[in-house]
Amino acid sequence: MIVYKSTDWWEALRHLGSSKIIRSLFKRVLYVGLYATFVEAAAVEFEILKFTVDKEFFTFLGIMLSLLLAFRTNTAYDRFYEGRRLWGQLTNNCRNLAGLLHARLPAHDQARRAYLAGLLSNFPLALEGHLRSKIKFHNLAEVEPGHIEQLRQAGHVPSRIATRLQEFYEQLLREGLILPEHLITIQRHHEALLDVAGGCERIRSTPIPFSYSYFIKGFITVFILTMPFNLLDSYRWLTIPITMFGAYALLGVEMIGDEIEDPFGKDSNDLPLTQMANRMRANVHEILGVDLHEEIRTLADVPYSVVF
Amino acid sequence: MIVYKSTDWWEALRHLGSSKIIRSLFKRVLYVGLYATFVEAAAVEFEILKFTVDKEFFTFLGIMLSLLLAFRTNTAYDRFYEGRRLWGQLTNNCRNLAGLLHARLPAHDQARRAYLAGLLSNFPLALEGHLRSKIKFHNLAEVEPGHIEQLRQAGHVPSRIATRLQEFYEQLLREGLILPEHLITIQRHHEALLDVAGGCERIRSTPIPFSYSYFIKGFITVFILTMPFNLLDSYRWLTIPITMFGAYALLGVEMIGDEIEDPFGKDSNDLPLTQMANRMRANVHEILGVDLHEEIRTLADVPYSVVF
Amino acid sequence: MIVYKSTDWWEALRHLGSSKIIRSLFKRVLYVGLYATFVEAAAVEFEILKFTVDKEFFTFLGIMLSLLLAFRTNTAYDRFYEGRRLWGQLTNNCRNLAGLLHARLPAHDQARRAYLAGLLSNFPLALEGHLRSKIKFHNLAEVEPGHIEQLRQAGHVPSRIATRLQEFYEQLLREGLILPEHLITIQRHHEALLDVAGGCERIRSTPIPFSYSYFIKGFITVFILTMPFNLLDSYRWLTIPITMFGAYALLGVEMIGDEIEDPFGKDSNDLPLTQMANRMRANVHEILGVDLHEEIRTLADVPYSVVF
Amino acid sequence: MIVYKSTDWWEALRHLGSSKIIRSLFKRVLYVGLYATFVEAAAVEFEILKFTVDKEFFTFLGIMLSLLLAFRTNTAYDRFYEGRRLWGQLTNNCRNLAGLLHARLPAHDQARRAYLAGLLSNFPLALEGHLRSKIKFHNLAEVEPGHIEQLRQAGHVPSRIATRLQEFYEQLLREGLILPEHLITIQRHHEALLDVAGGCERIRSTPIPFSYSYFIKGFITVFILTMPFNLLDSYRWLTIPITMFGAYALLGVEMIGDEIEDPFGKDSNDLPLTQMANRMRANVHEILGVDLHEEIRTLADVPYSVVF
Amino acid sequence: MIVYKSTDWWEALRHLGSSKIIRSLFKRVLYVGLYATFVEAAAVEFEILKFTVDKEFFTFLGIMLSLLLAFRTNTAYDRFYEGRRLWGQLTNNCRNLAGLLHARLPAHDQARRAYLAGLLSNFPLALEGHLRSKIKFHNLAEVEPGHIEQLRQAGHVPSRIATRLQEFYEQLLREGLILPEHLITIQRHHEALLDVAGGCERIRSTPIPFSYSYFIKGFITVFILTMPFNLLDSYRWLTIPITMFGAYALLGVEMIGDEIEDPFGKDSNDLPLTQMANRMRANVHEILGVDLHEEIRTLADVPYSVVF
Repeated sequence: MIVYKSTDWWEALRHLGSSKIIRSLFKRVLYVGLYATFVEAAAVEFEILKFTVDKEFFTFLGIMLSLLLAFRTNTAYDRFYEGRRLWGQLTNNCRNLAGLLHARLPAHDQARRAYLAGLLSNFPLALEGHLRSKIKFHNLAEVEPGHIEQLRQAGHVPSRIATRLQEFYEQLLREGLILPEHLITIQRHHEALLDVAGGCERIRSTPIPFSYSYFIKGFITVFILTMPFNLLDSYRWLTIPITMFGAYALLGVEMIGDEIEDPFGKDSNDLPLTQMANRMRANVHEILGVDLHEEIRTLADVPYSVVF
Repeated sequence: MIVYKSTDWWEALRHLGSSKIIRSLFKRVLYVGLYATFVEAAAVEFEILKFTVDKEFFTFLGIMLSLLLAFRTNTAYDRFYEGRRLWGQLTNNCRNLAGLLHARLPAHDQARRAYLAGLLSNFPLALEGHLRSKIKFHNLAEVEPGHIEQLRQAGHVPSRIATRLQEFYEQLLREGLILPEHLITIQRHHEALLDVAGGCERIRSTPIPFSYSYFIKGFITVFILTMPFNLLDSYRWLTIPITMFGAYALLGVEMIGDEIEDPFGKDSNDLPLTQMANRMRANVHEILGVDLHEEIRTLADVPYSVVF
Repeated sequence: MIVYKSTDWWEALRHLGSSKIIRSLFKRVLYVGLYATFVEAAAVEFEILKFTVDKEFFTFLGIMLSLLLAFRTNTAYDRFYEGRRLWGQLTNNCRNLAGLLHARLPAHDQARRAYLAGLLSNFPLALEGHLRSKIKFHNLAEVEPGHIEQLRQAGHVPSRIATRLQEFYEQLLREGLILPEHLITIQRHHEALLDVAGGCERIRSTPIPFSYSYFIKGFITVFILTMPFNLLDSYRWLTIPITMFGAYALLGVEMIGDEIEDPFGKDSNDLPLTQMANRMRANVHEILGVDLHEEIRTLADVPYSVVF
Repeated sequence: MIVYKSTDWWEALRHLGSSKIIRSLFKRVLYVGLYATFVEAAAVEFEILKFTVDKEFFTFLGIMLSLLLAFRTNTAYDRFYEGRRLWGQLTNNCRNLAGLLHARLPAHDQARRAYLAGLLSNFPLALEGHLRSKIKFHNLAEVEPGHIEQLRQAGHVPSRIATRLQEFYEQLLREGLILPEHLITIQRHHEALLDVAGGCERIRSTPIPFSYSYFIKGFITVFILTMPFNLLDSYRWLTIPITMFGAYALLGVEMIGDEIEDPFGKDSNDLPLTQMANRMRANVHEILGVDLHEEIRTLADVPYSVVF
Repeated sequence: MIVYKSTDWWEALRHLGSSKIIRSLFKRVLYVGLYATFVEAAAVEFEILKFTVDKEFFTFLGIMLSLLLAFRTNTAYDRFYEGRRLWGQLTNNCRNLAGLLHARLPAHDQARRAYLAGLLSNFPLALEGHLRSKIKFHNLAEVEPGHIEQLRQAGHVPSRIATRLQEFYEQLLREGLILPEHLITIQRHHEALLDVAGGCERIRSTPIPFSYSYFIKGFITVFILTMPFNLLDSYRWLTIPITMFGAYALLGVEMIGDEIEDPFGKDSNDLPLTQMANRMRANVHEILGVDLHEEIRTLADVPYSVVF
């Protein structure tokens, strides 16, 4: 994710090249330019392509396509923002869980505090890896002997960590460190962990329906292919840059939508999951009063400019 | 459901034929092409169809129709995504229920664990069948003698499974295996099972209101029938492909909307309910530490490309 | 409510006449046709109505009107669907309440089971009547002597039934049949009953604000009245069908919006409240294991085509 | 609030004058008419205003303005409907609170019942006054000596009533009339009272951001001022009524949005808070079995046509 | 934040200069004017810039851009309003927490009441500073010796205050001043404090995705640069003001969106966080019956016109 000052217009233009999707967009616009040049050259050389054009009809189709792209943009952004919202909720729940148990656990019980802080921090770290199909097990805390080894063999790592947390609450209950009434609140925060994991999996595995995606791509393709013919009679050679600008607008919205709708990758628009997980780790350790290695803690404060 | 890489533009075009709705769309576009050919031929032969056209008015009607189709698209997609969200919630609730009871049940109590894992897994499997009007009873787990037979005679199978689960919690409470306070959390997860079932039934049984559907179909029909007359004077024989492209755009949005709004079928855009139910079964068994037959477990990992 | 297969295009056209709102729409379109004929005739006879027209401006106003109608359509549909959602929630809550109490009540206690099944089933039946301003008291179950008579005298019948249910839970609590912790869950389901009732009353009693409704009607009226003048110079006598088609589009969206926004009537687009209430009654009796008269039970299975 | 039958088109036109905002709109449209007359007269007299016009560009700006007004309309309506929803929720919570405590309080304990009914009814009555900046203290029930005097001196009256209710629950708990578990449910309903109050305050005190409001007003002003110049060449003297119609459309949407976004006033589009509060009072008294003075009770049944 | 009467049209125009974003907008519109003058001058002097223009295509691109800006406006406003909603929720939760504990704490226990009122009031005050990157520690209440010093050293100040509150509840529980059942409700309100903090952090740290922002800025830039060429042939020197008006419309929507989407600054559109925090402090002290220094209390009543 690239962070920028949204009110600074000029500096924004400078960073244009750093977004992969924007580079890829420029490449495609170039192809369209070549195509338009070819059409224009053929029209000039052979004079075979002259015909009157119903510009109104073309405008109507363009507006209809724009409405479809507005729909596309909305759904893609909704997913992006839902992803962000889910990770924000995860932060809140980790803080709340840590705060509640901090107030219950005896102040001197550093063993349990460290265990909880480590286990709870492992959840977002593992979820980040789970969503990006590569869990960095060496980053997780070994809260008890064999813990990481167990996780390596689990089918669904975040779910396994949640199960360990659940067992931990029951243990606290048996030892009388929490009351049954505490459990009611704890469970509410705890279940949110798996809800967030499930929500993120849903966003990742359910793109916009197949038919819509193909339909819009087909519509754009034909629309751009016919565009030079509609512009030839007014603009002559200027048709080429104008077609490219039109293609930039249409392809741009579609391609950004495609990229935004899965916000868990490592593109310049994707969410900084690693940094967020590190920040949760720092928060949870601070709340529970457990020391965190200086080097690990500072990971949470990486300057927020190009982060993943 | 067909899974595809949304950023890969060219490969997408290759799969065009595999969606039933897109094939059906092409057929209708062809009919419109025949109609346009007929109109054009009549106009040329008899010169009876020449008249000036108010293209502005036609454009206004087209934009209005586009706005209605945007509304259609939004409501259809909302249903699709709500269906997906409900099944995602079901996954979360099954995992949470299994996790909570795993932490409470004695580790050695394999009988109860197997009973719970089987019964809980039956819920999504039965719901899948219930929504597709054909429950595959042989896939359900026979958690106790006569269980499947009872289900066969139930009026509402998912509801019957939920009732059995409810009785199971009460039994655990009576035997002191869970506290009354646990029940408060369990009930919250449990009720979500029936909420998901009810929500899916609602989506399936309530299409967009009758009047809207007819109204939009009528509007599109008249609009497409008049389209060639509006294009004749500019395009002559080119009217035919251009009418077909316009029909493709209008019919496409409407037809995809019709199909998407019931996401529980077995079309290429529908949700992979069977696979999701299998995955819940695998999850629940793993969390509760109950062995699942290798063959059944691997059903959850079917490659995610054409799944139902 | 008329149920239809949304993917079947041709059969849909056949049913066109059965929707009251669509019949009324056709009548108004006919009036507009008469008006357009009059304008056209006057223009031809007296040649007084010839003037140049700014079609662009007309298009702009038309698009603005379309955006207002899109807003109108969205709010109307949101109400329709919220009404459906509320009744779906009612179904879920009745099932959940029945399921929970079924697991608690002794299996042999048929008296209490029948009382609960009857009382709970009365709620949706009474709510249906309450929303349609005519409660069919003879359809309600006489769960205890004088019950229906009491309801007849109540100011707000669903609220009175809810009060009786509330007293029933307290009675169960006093007799130790449920624990106080059960009450927490029961109350959550119970309060949803009154929430649904309140939500439905809100939808019924709050149409789109007065000013918007008038404003849109005024806009459409003037727009349609000026329409023939804008079309005369291009279309001559064809102005008449084209004006009618334009009026069909504009009036149609507005009128359907007006009808959809109160989904509790008995129009062809309204929700099948009676059938849904009957189905809840069948569900609740099945879950609680209480026999229901065959004749009453089958009411829930009325073929879903024209139901109220 | 004026209530109307939304399906009755003609009667609606008759009431046009009773909405203050619509009268004010007509006045402004008249001013625009005078301005257009002046422009037209100047153009005819001095022939100085003749120039070609790019109608396409004007149309584009008009459509952009329409989209902004659609946004304006949506946000205004969302506030209106959220206000309605909050008061609906208040109704539900009052009924639920009354129902729950009715089932717990001894049937003969008329003193406590009357106290609760009065105090609970005071909440919506006070909130109505609070939102309209004038609490009618003489309408509130004097539930205990000095109660109203205390309220008069409170900084935030609804909050003070809620505090008294909270003390009442604690008293019931101390006397064993409710169990601690009841409190969990009661608190949920109770907190909704203050949530509704806070939500309404939010709607009232946060209009659409300053910049948007000014920006749209500036856009409309310039757009309407240039409108006659765009129409002159086509319409000559007809420019005047057509400009007025355009101004009606644009000013109308903006002005209605301004008015709707604060639904707690006493305009013809505002919510009937007084009547709703009276109805809650009647409901609460009926549920708790407390007599209400005939005269007060009938206030709830004021015919729903012009109510505040 | 500037407060204004939305129905007063003329006074609104007077305040135009006080919004920083609107001043900045006027500056940019001026630059565009200079550019248009240059283009017009070149066209007149050298006659090199004459060509026919496809106005339809330009209109289509303009409408597509308008749709993107409508999307931009919606997302920006959603953030603004979500921010407002979160602070409204914070108000409700502080009031509810204070109300519940007021009813439980002994009336004479002024020490605990003052401690709670101070600590609870510190939360919004600290959150305001946290969101604006500068906590005014001297404004916080020193509820116990060393409290503010501790907060100064905390990594996340609102989180530290929440932890202290959590410890306070546990202390009340240990001393029997609240029952475990109270804790269930208290926790629900308490967790909302951190949820609000997390939600606000999310809004502040997640602007609209990088690609969309750049894409829209690029689109607008090219569109405005080509605008004079499209208008030259119709308007000659009038091109300059008309281009400026077009630029005003496009740049205005984009710039206001940029500013609105972070509602926690001190611009004229931003939320009056300081005043809201002061008001919560006054409310909480009033509810708990703790005296607040006259000078501090009146901060909550600062006239609502230009507040931060």
